[in-house]
Amino acid sequence: MSIPAEAFVLPPAGRGTLQQRIRQMVTEGVLSGRFRAGQKMPSSRGLAEHLGISRITVTLSYAELVSADYLMARGRSGYFISENAPRAPELQARAPRAEGVDFAALTGGRFSRLATVKRPLDWENYQFPFIYGQADASLFDHQNWRLCALRALGRKDFAALTSDMYDRDDPLLIEHLLRSILPRRGIAAREDEVLLTMGAQNALWITTAVLLGAGRRAAVENPGYSGLRGVLAPSGSEVISVDVDADGLPPDRLPKGVDVVFTTASHQCPTNATMPLERRLALLEAASRENFVIVEDDYEFEMSFLKPVSPALKSLDSEGRVIYAGSFSKSVFPGMRLGYLVGPASFIREARALRLMMLRHPPGHIQRTVAYFLSLGHYDALINRMRNAYRRRRQVMEEAIRDNGLAVAGQGGFGGSSFWMRAPAGVDTEVLAEGLRAEGVLIEPGRAFFAPEQAPKNFYRLGYSSISPAKIPEGIARIGRAIRGA
Amino acid sequence: MSIPAEAFVLPPAGRGTLQQRIRQMVTEGVLSGRFRAGQKMPSSRGLAEHLGISRITVTLSYAELVSADYLMARGRSGYFISENAPRAPELQARAPRAEGVDFAALTGGRFSRLATVKRPLDWENYQFPFIYGQADASLFDHQNWRLCALRALGRKDFAALTSDMYDRDDPLLIEHLLRSILPRRGIAAREDEVLLTMGAQNALWITTAVLLGAGRRAAVENPGYSGLRGVLAPSGSEVISVDVDADGLPPDRLPKGVDVVFTTASHQCPTNATMPLERRLALLEAASRENFVIVEDDYEFEMSFLKPVSPALKSLDSEGRVIYAGSFSKSVFPGMRLGYLVGPASFIREARALRLMMLRHPPGHIQRTVAYFLSLGHYDALINRMRNAYRRRRQVMEEAIRDNGLAVAGQGGFGGSSFWMRAPAGVDTEVLAEGLRAEGVLIEPGRAFFAPEQAPKNFYRLGYSSISPAKIPEGIARIGRAIRGA
Repeated sequence: MSIPAEAFVLPPAGRGTLQQRIRQMVTEGVLSGRFRAGQKMPSSRGLAEHLGISRITVTLSYAELVSADYLMARGRSGYFISENAPRAPELQARAPRAEGVDFAALTGGRFSRLATVKRPLDWENYQFPFIYGQADASLFDHQNWRLCALRALGRKDFAALTSDMYDRDDPLLIEHLLRSILPRRGIAAREDEVLLTMGAQNALWITTAVLLGAGRRAAVENPGYSGLRGVLAPSGSEVISVDVDADGLPPDRLPKGVDVVFTTASHQCPTNATMPLERRLALLEAASRENFVIVEDDYEFEMSFLKPVSPALKSLDSEGRVIYAGSFSKSVFPGMRLGYLVGPASFIREARALRLMMLRHPPGHIQRTVAYFLSLGHYDALINRMRNAYRRRRQVMEEAIRDNGLAVAGQGGFGGSSFWMRAPAGVDTEVLAEGLRAEGVLIEPGRAFFAPEQAPKNFYRLGYSSISPAKIPEGIARIGRAIRGA
Repeated sequence: MSIPAEAFVLPPAGRGTLQQRIRQMVTEGVLSGRFRAGQKMPSSRGLAEHLGISRITVTLSYAELVSADYLMARGRSGYFISENAPRAPELQARAPRAEGVDFAALTGGRFSRLATVKRPLDWENYQFPFIYGQADASLFDHQNWRLCALRALGRKDFAALTSDMYDRDDPLLIEHLLRSILPRRGIAAREDEVLLTMGAQNALWITTAVLLGAGRRAAVENPGYSGLRGVLAPSGSEVISVDVDADGLPPDRLPKGVDVVFTTASHQCPTNATMPLERRLALLEAASRENFVIVEDDYEFEMSFLKPVSPALKSLDSEGRVIYAGSFSKSVFPGMRLGYLVGPASFIREARALRLMMLRHPPGHIQRTVAYFLSLGHYDALINRMRNAYRRRRQVMEEAIRDNGLAVAGQGGFGGSSFWMRAPAGVDTEVLAEGLRAEGVLIEPGRAFFAPEQAPKNFYRLGYSSISPAKIPEGIARIGRAIRGA
């Protein structure tokens, strides 16, 4: 590949003559590894025009670079980076740079200290990945996704693909959400009550930015979704953790004077508990009485395969007090970053204005592709396939867990894609996970789900959405051995 | 298309017998327009299993619905929504819903009142769209974009497409940014000094959230990018507007005690001024002396076609005081929402942690497609084509503007894609724009670019990135007539 003239930016005057500065640009490019042996240089005329200098200056510099063996001339075809040019060192020394501003001090590490446990991105290289929330190549409908994406790349969809939509969403996708997805949760919403987001994480972020802030109080489930704590902490709100029980969040344990209550009512994260109807009604009644708003994170409703999914809390909301967050991350795949918020129009209006300032909108191409994937029925087929696979995996998991004498702390009655596990009291599952990793087994330590001040160390989560049933027994056996040896 | 069993969510007990509740689900679906004539109902067995009730209950309900003409039976093929079923009204009455929470009061309309002038999404239906920042179908390389997207949809790229990457970016795209894009701006950055964002807007949002907040002061250019005010206002920072002159932002007019200075040094938005080297050095020196951070929004650097682009301010930054924001919105298209931040590693670390909580990462598919588009040289070819087209359009614009006696307030010497215009003192360009719209001409009123308290009304912007040269003379003539008649 040839190097475009635009790759050359003349260093400021004062750093030598024009010729020297041209040589400097080339040698720096080679030594930094940006230019590689065999790449074609711009013509002397092209570079001269680009830099606004005389062609002879460039020609003379090129000649010097040839004699220094940075360039080689190939007759009429021009100049190339020489095969003998000094190579960039394979591992560049990472000398810390001069930093005139102490950004760590300036920001107080406000965001970086919230970062949760790093998860391995190369989980597919592990034999027994009991990880959670990644797509499974063996289940995904790659072929039809490609066809939908291709259709969304067609000339007819040029505007949907390329336009800055400002604060608006793809009307095709919104229509399918309203007509086909939300009704499955018992939710009848209108256009002005829905907003697309960059996944559920972004939905929670936007909701928090709109509703919370310094001087306000939020209640969260304990244990609960770890990503939510990372959203709430920088908002400046007071965060109160409420212990969940086998039926999820108990409304009678909510503190007084709370402004917003976050819940994963239908499939508590991470315990998988489903809140019974009476408790849902009690929670809504408390919200009305105490005047708080409920944020329902319904992140995994599609994965009900043991019994019918319970309707969303939002479906019982007669007062417009529930903000509902949904996502396509679990049912399609997380890498596309698409979710949605449902709430009263006056809330959605604020959320939409915030999204406009924050990021405008999710990419048009992704929105349109999902719209096609839904409308052509591929989404339903995919979910069916996932449910069948998960049902089978869950059964194998249950047997292996029993055979190895491991303790389940929560598995839920609806289905899902994970087990919430308790190791014996003395076991630190972060140490356990580290040891298992060396044996090809990935588990998720549970500490990050708890309020930090009182987090027990012996819980862990086992996902089965990305592991084949054949691998499960041996993987669980290794976990059993590691726990007994801990 | 048949209706899946999942589309049915049983209303809570207490709203009648099971049979009544099933009928209610169907009639509500029909009346709301979700179910349409001819759609196939789930089998009675399928629905019974889904709802966890006896099949006979479903069968009896279906029979009743047939006699009420909501359903029709077609022998062994099952039940369908009847052609005679009541239709959903075409325009549903938008009765305001009961809203138990006054979200407008709760949020103080904090975000919605920042929303800038609405721009028409259907600009292509106007004959003379002097709009700014949308993609032009006649210049875009649709064919090669499709090929790159297809490649990014291949099985080899399954992980890049589908994975939750947590806080990480596509290494392929980062490599091309570092090796090929940033060097054109004179910037030599390392991996840990770059972060991808959802466009430049998101880059400014993240930077503001990391660096600013209550008790901090930001300086912005006046006039300046209107989307920046929408980012800064909710941060709680004090915002000071500094009037620009023909050379852009004057460092000697910056107030004391400022924490962050935002500038569009290379092509001031909206005046198109390019800050000369001496002023850049003075600005950097002031930053060092007064200890502030500079945020450089380099939104349009690719569009230099009249003379070589001046290196970015960031390229002169020896102390790590400049945060650089770039974007592919102007050079590829805005609908994909992809931009990037370059800054000291300690800053990028915070920005990355914030992005993780806020939205995780831009969709993997978009990142990979752009990586291919860059690495295969299509980006360079596209930019060349755009530059040539813009050069020609700008010339036609200049002539038409002169012929019609319109006043240019800023056009820049480098190129760009717009003219900054001044109408006679008495003209309100928002009224002007409204009138011109009715004649098929779109212009952008200038008021939104100014600090609200002192905004003059007679400026406007004319973009030429989405209008064919053949249309320009007549479009400008109409503007001239409208101004003379105003």
